[in-house]
Amino acid sequence: MTMRAVGYQRPLSIEHPQALCDIELPLPEPDPHELLVHVEAIAVNPVDTKMRSRDTPAEGLWRVLGWDCAGVVEAVGARTTGFQAGDRVWYAGVLNRPGCQSEWHCVDARLVSLRPETWSATEAAALPLTALTAWELLEDRLGVPLEENGSAGAGSTLLVVGASGGVGSILVQLARRCSGLRVVATASGGEGESWLSMLGADAVIDHRRPLQAQLGDLGIVAVDRVASLSHTDQHFETLVDLLRPQGAMALIDDPDPAAINLLSLKRKSLSLHWEWMFTRSHFQTADMARQGEILGRVAGLADRGHLRSTARECLGPISASNLRLAHRQLEAGHSLGKRVLSGFR
Amino acid sequence: MTMRAVGYQRPLSIEHPQALCDIELPLPEPDPHELLVHVEAIAVNPVDTKMRSRDTPAEGLWRVLGWDCAGVVEAVGARTTGFQAGDRVWYAGVLNRPGCQSEWHCVDARLVSLRPETWSATEAAALPLTALTAWELLEDRLGVPLEENGSAGAGSTLLVVGASGGVGSILVQLARRCSGLRVVATASGGEGESWLSMLGADAVIDHRRPLQAQLGDLGIVAVDRVASLSHTDQHFETLVDLLRPQGAMALIDDPDPAAINLLSLKRKSLSLHWEWMFTRSHFQTADMARQGEILGRVAGLADRGHLRSTARECLGPISASNLRLAHRQLEAGHSLGKRVLSGFR
Repeated sequence: MTMRAVGYQRPLSIEHPQALCDIELPLPEPDPHELLVHVEAIAVNPVDTKMRSRDTPAEGLWRVLGWDCAGVVEAVGARTTGFQAGDRVWYAGVLNRPGCQSEWHCVDARLVSLRPETWSATEAAALPLTALTAWELLEDRLGVPLEENGSAGAGSTLLVVGASGGVGSILVQLARRCSGLRVVATASGGEGESWLSMLGADAVIDHRRPLQAQLGDLGIVAVDRVASLSHTDQHFETLVDLLRPQGAMALIDDPDPAAINLLSLKRKSLSLHWEWMFTRSHFQTADMARQGEILGRVAGLADRGHLRSTARECLGPISASNLRLAHRQLEAGHSLGKRVLSGFR
Repeated sequence: MTMRAVGYQRPLSIEHPQALCDIELPLPEPDPHELLVHVEAIAVNPVDTKMRSRDTPAEGLWRVLGWDCAGVVEAVGARTTGFQAGDRVWYAGVLNRPGCQSEWHCVDARLVSLRPETWSATEAAALPLTALTAWELLEDRLGVPLEENGSAGAGSTLLVVGASGGVGSILVQLARRCSGLRVVATASGGEGESWLSMLGADAVIDHRRPLQAQLGDLGIVAVDRVASLSHTDQHFETLVDLLRPQGAMALIDDPDPAAINLLSLKRKSLSLHWEWMFTRSHFQTADMARQGEILGRVAGLADRGHLRSTARECLGPISASNLRLAHRQLEAGHSLGKRVLSGFR
């Protein structure tokens, strides 16, 4: 028995017709600790385009991408508890295993939770990878406790640089609704600004203009924490200047190491925190189930009306041509929220 | 009225007779928030030699070094509470103010505490700067709660690189006695090894040989936290390899930025924490009084027998010639514990 999927056999420019192909693959079988999921909707992330342009599968094999899934549990591995067939779930998954751009998909149950009951599969698919990144960044890396109507961050300011993309769009909401932090977000102009204001940012400034002056206009001379989500190398020295002594900066992108002088962090005793959403699953850490737990908490917040989906655009069914469009848009940069795809035609 | 002091007027090699001079200075007067302290004993630190070789005082003025003091309160500023004349105190002080290598010295009272009653001034003088560094590094930067017989770190391992110097000699004790962390310390051979074992390190390894194999011999495949106290640039990639996913590294030295590739921290979602003991006093942070509080806790631990002084050698009275000797020894590197000087002849 086979299933429809989208995959590639070697890294190619997204303009090449074989950059992503409609393929048929054998139906996967779940390991004892896995769920077999019928995929309803997926979202695309920058990691998809990075993998597609760098990662070569073994000769003759197809690489399937996709690390944002909303689906329905079809079968449960022999040693898996807590889920049953018919459960509507969401998850990001594991980078070094097949992604979810296929009709059926197997995933380690510890990385999965029930998804928001009040959201469509399309709305849900936008969130897992970025919500995990944002939650881990805030709570596990920067040490800001998150809870419904939480106020642990009250009185301090978080600067979110490059906030209008997928991670920023959920991070701004989590920080505002669950920590009480004052959130200043940066975007590159009008559309990003209105999107972030709508998501709840206390203020939105333009990262194409000097940040210090714009913060000064808001009466802010220093920020307590920074989440640098893109172009960290361009902003690094400014962010160090803006941070208060003993402050902390988290980052998720791939800055040019030569542009970052670590020593500039010393005088203020600053800390630098990497967040990579795949760390737990890649290293199979003892606390891997934390990701299922985080997704469950996010689902609860969504169902109680505290979060809105970051899906901005549905590109249609999951197909090579629609995914090529999504990759092309991601590679062009400057996106707002997330692009999702739903179903297989 | 004047007092004896040791100072310099321009950066010179320590071999130059004017590198440090016996001088007479006017007696200082305490600001409203300061204490006037009669200096009994002092210790030297690497920051002394760094300042002496880099920092030029204004034309015709003397720069006095010294950021480790045990003394007796002589007078109390008008707006200072909590201290009275006759109190036996200790402190590190402020970098951009005169150091304590003078018969009398003024210091912000928030940076001061009563010193251990059961220790001599000489024993006490060895500790403030390094104990503050070690405590801040463990508790304020790495987030390890410290308390008498504490066990918050039980089950995890701290690797202390370059542990036989001043900071390491107290950090190893604090980590062992107050957090329950398993402490593996590195030194460069025999004398350092026996010193650190005596101070309570669970194991001592040789940082001139590959660390991974030596940790393997101890049954350790990964460490949870690293305190890198010297030669961070030489060890950086190895330390990243040794850290478990989501681990943390703190550092206090001045690594060559070109030798440190930040991106190598990403895959494991590691964090990097700078500790600079002068951050709070230099920036006059709102929590500056935390340093007085930490010193008070260290004094309590010392009096209840949990800590021993890290003083290894008393070089005699506070004089230019004895301080030149101390600087020469520090500049030669590889020191064990601390060098202290006591009284003015």
